Amino acid sequence: MKITFLTVGKTTFPFVKEGCDIFIKRIKHYTTFEYIEIPELKNTSSLSKDQIKEKEAELILKNVKNTDKVVLLDERGKNFSSIEWSKELEKEIISGTKSVIFIVGGAYGFSKTIYERANGKLSLSSMTFSHQIIRLFFIEQLYRAFTIMKGEPYHNE
Amino acid sequence: MKITFLTVGKTTFPFVKEGCDIFIKRIKHYTTFEYIEIPELKNTSSLSKDQIKEKEAELILKNVKNTDKVVLLDERGKNFSSIEWSKELEKEIISGTKSVIFIVGGAYGFSKTIYERANGKLSLSSMTFSHQIIRLFFIEQLYRAFTIMKGEPYHNE
Repeated sequence: MKITFLTVGKTTFPFVKEGCDIFIKRIKHYTTFEYIEIPELKNTSSLSKDQIKEKEAELILKNVKNTDKVVLLDERGKNFSSIEWSKELEKEIISGTKSVIFIVGGAYGFSKTIYERANGKLSLSSMTFSHQIIRLFFIEQLYRAFTIMKGEPYHNE
Repeated sequence: MKITFLTVGKTTFPFVKEGCDIFIKRIKHYTTFEYIEIPELKNTSSLSKDQIKEKEAELILKNVKNTDKVVLLDERGKNFSSIEWSKELEKEIISGTKSVIFIVGGAYGFSKTIYERANGKLSLSSMTFSHQIIRLFFIEQLYRAFTIMKGEPYHNE
């Protein structure tokens, strides 16, 4: 199963990039993984939040294929423990899902268009994290999910 | 109000240290903040998990004063949204609490002694994060809490 992680906006903190790189390298031992960063919109000062979200949605959807399963990282999404989420991923793999794309929105979240296209919503926390730092959280969690699936010692329960 | 953040084990990933440093600098504009890292235990190969947790507890309690309010970062703790947690912190400040200490345990969690001493438990996520990366999550969230209290533009709801 191919896993794509798509975020809106470049990673601005060097420490976020460093951390993501460490775990992405590890994830690639388990699965095909692609990380796509959509560049931030420019000249947005005359646009409303809704207009920004719609423009971001166009750019997001250019990277989504019809056959992709789309999961949004969203505070109102489903909560899982690490073990539960690992099992969810394993189910997708077993059921033959070819490609899943996880998406983190921009600073104002997702437009309606994106919610309509989504197959699921995942919440990492009831707290809000910056759309920069959430990248690190997700990528570490994805690595952890694979170590759990494989029974490897990274995860202490 | 003084806020102390105590963790067991040194930060091993440079990116975690870099990220924490960025937000600690910002937090210090709002409050007195101390970050204490208790060094990892050495020669633990002959010890059980419970023995390790008890030894860590002794080291933790050396840094806790009788008057400190102790909050454990624990998966079975209370969930808050960022805004709710900011309000909780604000309540502590208003009610005249002098010192709160937030504690992240070692790889195996907390001993019974620590649970008994605790005044509260906070869960950042139903997922398990490494006890390295959770530092970054907590510190960013603490910074966010102060920006919410002050009505500053970091937090988009």
